[in-house]
Amino acid sequence: VFVNGFPCKDPTNVTPDDFYISGLDKVANTDNDLGANITLVNVNRLPGLNTLGVAMSRIDYAPFGLNPPHSHPHSSEILHVAEGTLFAGFVRSNTEKGNILIAKKLNTGDAFVFPQGLMHFQFNLGDTNAVAFAAFGSQSPGLVTIANALFGSKPPIPYYILSQAVQLSKTTVDWLQQQEWVDIAREY
Amino acid sequence: VFVNGFPCKDPTNVTPDDFYISGLDKVANTDNDLGANITLVNVNRLPGLNTLGVAMSRIDYAPFGLNPPHSHPHSSEILHVAEGTLFAGFVRSNTEKGNILIAKKLNTGDAFVFPQGLMHFQFNLGDTNAVAFAAFGSQSPGLVTIANALFGSKPPIPYYILSQAVQLSKTTVDWLQQQEWVDIAREY
Amino acid sequence: VFVNGFPCKDPTNVTPDDFYISGLDKVANTDNDLGANITLVNVNRLPGLNTLGVAMSRIDYAPFGLNPPHSHPHSSEILHVAEGTLFAGFVRSNTEKGNILIAKKLNTGDAFVFPQGLMHFQFNLGDTNAVAFAAFGSQSPGLVTIANALFGSKPPIPYYILSQAVQLSKTTVDWLQQQEWVDIAREY
Amino acid sequence: VFVNGFPCKDPTNVTPDDFYISGLDKVANTDNDLGANITLVNVNRLPGLNTLGVAMSRIDYAPFGLNPPHSHPHSSEILHVAEGTLFAGFVRSNTEKGNILIAKKLNTGDAFVFPQGLMHFQFNLGDTNAVAFAAFGSQSPGLVTIANALFGSKPPIPYYILSQAVQLSKTTVDWLQQQEWVDIAREY
Amino acid sequence: VFVNGFPCKDPTNVTPDDFYISGLDKVANTDNDLGANITLVNVNRLPGLNTLGVAMSRIDYAPFGLNPPHSHPHSSEILHVAEGTLFAGFVRSNTEKGNILIAKKLNTGDAFVFPQGLMHFQFNLGDTNAVAFAAFGSQSPGLVTIANALFGSKPPIPYYILSQAVQLSKTTVDWLQQQEWVDIAREY
Amino acid sequence: VFVNGFPCKDPTNVTPDDFYISGLDKVANTDNDLGANITLVNVNRLPGLNTLGVAMSRIDYAPFGLNPPHSHPHSSEILHVAEGTLFAGFVRSNTEKGNILIAKKLNTGDAFVFPQGLMHFQFNLGDTNAVAFAAFGSQSPGLVTIANALFGSKPPIPYYILSQAVQLSKTTVDWLQQQEWVDIAREY
Repeated sequence: VFVNGFPCKDPTNVTPDDFYISGLDKVANTDNDLGANITLVNVNRLPGLNTLGVAMSRIDYAPFGLNPPHSHPHSSEILHVAEGTLFAGFVRSNTEKGNILIAKKLNTGDAFVFPQGLMHFQFNLGDTNAVAFAAFGSQSPGLVTIANALFGSKPPIPYYILSQAVQLSKTTVDWLQQQEWVDIAREY
Repeated sequence: VFVNGFPCKDPTNVTPDDFYISGLDKVANTDNDLGANITLVNVNRLPGLNTLGVAMSRIDYAPFGLNPPHSHPHSSEILHVAEGTLFAGFVRSNTEKGNILIAKKLNTGDAFVFPQGLMHFQFNLGDTNAVAFAAFGSQSPGLVTIANALFGSKPPIPYYILSQAVQLSKTTVDWLQQQEWVDIAREY
Repeated sequence: VFVNGFPCKDPTNVTPDDFYISGLDKVANTDNDLGANITLVNVNRLPGLNTLGVAMSRIDYAPFGLNPPHSHPHSSEILHVAEGTLFAGFVRSNTEKGNILIAKKLNTGDAFVFPQGLMHFQFNLGDTNAVAFAAFGSQSPGLVTIANALFGSKPPIPYYILSQAVQLSKTTVDWLQQQEWVDIAREY
Repeated sequence: VFVNGFPCKDPTNVTPDDFYISGLDKVANTDNDLGANITLVNVNRLPGLNTLGVAMSRIDYAPFGLNPPHSHPHSSEILHVAEGTLFAGFVRSNTEKGNILIAKKLNTGDAFVFPQGLMHFQFNLGDTNAVAFAAFGSQSPGLVTIANALFGSKPPIPYYILSQAVQLSKTTVDWLQQQEWVDIAREY
Repeated sequence: VFVNGFPCKDPTNVTPDDFYISGLDKVANTDNDLGANITLVNVNRLPGLNTLGVAMSRIDYAPFGLNPPHSHPHSSEILHVAEGTLFAGFVRSNTEKGNILIAKKLNTGDAFVFPQGLMHFQFNLGDTNAVAFAAFGSQSPGLVTIANALFGSKPPIPYYILSQAVQLSKTTVDWLQQQEWVDIAREY
Repeated sequence: VFVNGFPCKDPTNVTPDDFYISGLDKVANTDNDLGANITLVNVNRLPGLNTLGVAMSRIDYAPFGLNPPHSHPHSSEILHVAEGTLFAGFVRSNTEKGNILIAKKLNTGDAFVFPQGLMHFQFNLGDTNAVAFAAFGSQSPGLVTIANALFGSKPPIPYYILSQAVQLSKTTVDWLQQQEWVDIAREY
């Protein structure tokens, strides 16, 4: 409960540790099929963020690792590259000219913006590890990994919907729905 | 420009037509590969919505027509079925239990909720036309059709990203990116 | 309580029925002095709307039925006519030119906008039933029926206030305060 | 235009006078049929309020003067009595128990709250002048004087609507619509 | 808990006293080193303000009394002078031209605006008591008295930080941290 | 101007460079009296942030360098330490128990939260350079450096106010107002 504009449950009993988290210098394990890993710092992990409208994350990328197309329902994002070289982009809402991809190669020290709710991704272009940090304007940005939501949902989306939506045969959709879908971060 | 809490540019010169639109009784043309069509009433089509935080749409479905998986970056939605039978659902954010599909068969007179920014769809289960109406809590809900953004963007998302993200071969991705992607609605 | 951007109390335990409501195809009973009836779908009736900023309603009108002057403290509205012919309008805030009425005859398929907090109404111009649907940008739009609030409050507003405010004699005010005031919808 | 979080058009060229207004110590002219007068300080009169989400007003009451039932579409209000004795109240949204009046006699030094969008009023109970000050949480609270909007709109609301809505004869409605409706404040 | 847009915990059980407070006509005790006293009316003292986005305060000033430099993290403010003559001002955010002071002498009946989060003050220029009232656009504006936060915090800010930040010797900082810091208002 | 939920002036004419900035890998010049430097990425430097509610900054600290007590009127902040060891803290709003300092030593990889509008600081505890990155939940967080606003404003705050507020003699205040006040970042 929000008490008097202060973010913690019992404002008379707050300590520095309520506003503190550690471990953002650690290289996370990227030994998965995407070669990436997200360390999310939202209100679930850092209770002091409650009511404060801000969150962050660290993203690790193995060589040619991918933070796959995803979106944040509750927040925009700025990402800056701390180490390595990424190809990053987002796709705009439907327009008369189609779905415009806004993308760019990012070197160490570059930053890029992903507007709220739009699908975006980053790919490690180099053969060394890469690291990026993201800033969010919500204590709970939310996270929808597009392929997981399309092909990995439980229960699955019926094939006659997916097949028509993505122009793939029932066989391919069936096969896709039987694959493992790597989950490199989650909100809850 | 927002003048004094009133939605129109020149508040001394407003007429009823600034708050009016017609044609929502018309069956829209569903003669496309998805068998569906969206008539969006946002601030672009109805200027009186400016600053008012609300919008709506009519969706027409041919028999077995599909409003394919999409999301609205700026608004939640309630949809009610005016005619026919739909299968409708949304996929939640990533959770420990995976990506949960929340879906249900909807008959005429039923309504269903789609939370902001989450991927959702409707499919006409019947062999007759169906019609639904959607209410939004934003004058510009935004619209991201998932498959169009993934496979139909301009320029295309590089194959080495898509291929890895959706577990499809380069050949399949190439083929998908050469297809026509039906755009049954747009924000701009 | 709002947990992690998801609208329900226990996000690990959500079912499709939390996001579902039925009955919007039913003609509501309009056998009252106003000849109208409102079926409101807000967060009280549909818990899945919690935190989502959207709501809707169905309005039924008998021939010459009236949805009387009222306002929504927490939301603007778009109304579209599903059946019949209505005369609908709203009155703007006080201006130099007085209180401007913005009103129009609406046929089936027409939509009209009512800005937040402004007094508005719809009247069935035809000798057949009419039906409209309203979209709101709040999970709890609120509802103030103007005449009920003025003349039907409990306890009553003192006559020396009402009498002066509406330029009616004490006798008329007393009489008005003894009438039944039809309540065709409520928030709580 | 909002530039960098600072409220004025050209933030390099701001003076103290952009944030200043005078005259709130003056007794306003209450020589009208209501015996009241409102001095509104919103963004129209005080440009420095732009983007700041706050406004205020001074209300003067002749003996037995009335600030008639009205509502503010965009803001709640706290009113405190600087001089005199008022009877003040508001009517809640429609509930199961009807439209509850929340009202109280206020002496000098008392304050009372009026929630956003709800109809409220103040009446000077004494035979001396009274003065109150109101605080708002919007730069443009808006103002709807209920009787003026009902009976004094231009063009008038059709008699068959008003008559049914307020349970008055066509003759009485016609008569009311021909009266002068005192406008003791306006937004524009 | 916010129930149905109505500010109180149990909306079926609300009384006028939930929206009422008294005593704003009383001269508060200014017998302290600053010669000032603030009577804050926020949601802690007036529960009916919950969810309503508004608050107020009364400030008393002895001759040459000071409401010292402070800021409100959650709200802008309009202050009007009910009695006496004040010198009031605020300091803008850092700019190319430095930190601009926007200040003015205020007589009885004058009002001045203090934007959200900016440091501001009022000083009684006269040899008689002064009184002012402030309007806020938040139910919990928050309050940071600058000198108290700098020099009176518990535990103290280390001298090597303060000393460098305010260009004072360790001896002066030590002395300052041993002083009493008058607290003329608080949020909690 | 905000067009259709997309952040740039002319949404038909957007390029990746509108969402891009570089140079965040560069060690900024800390050769000033505070031994610190802030590289702010807000909407002024990165136009694509318009309407997106997020911003960031890089802070460089020389050995024993100080980011002095300051506040952000429009945003909370999370800061993480990329290199070095900092002592960081904020002071809460006034409470019954006084002004509580919430502070902690931060090592590389640690993060700490600073709530909106509260005074906070970081000090480099080590004899090597340090680097931190901050995430904000506003496109224009604003920046008030406390000592600069108190002692370095233009025109100066009158000595009789400052002297009383900070318990320093006129001589000391005069001396302080003649010093240079390092401005290591600005909003405009």
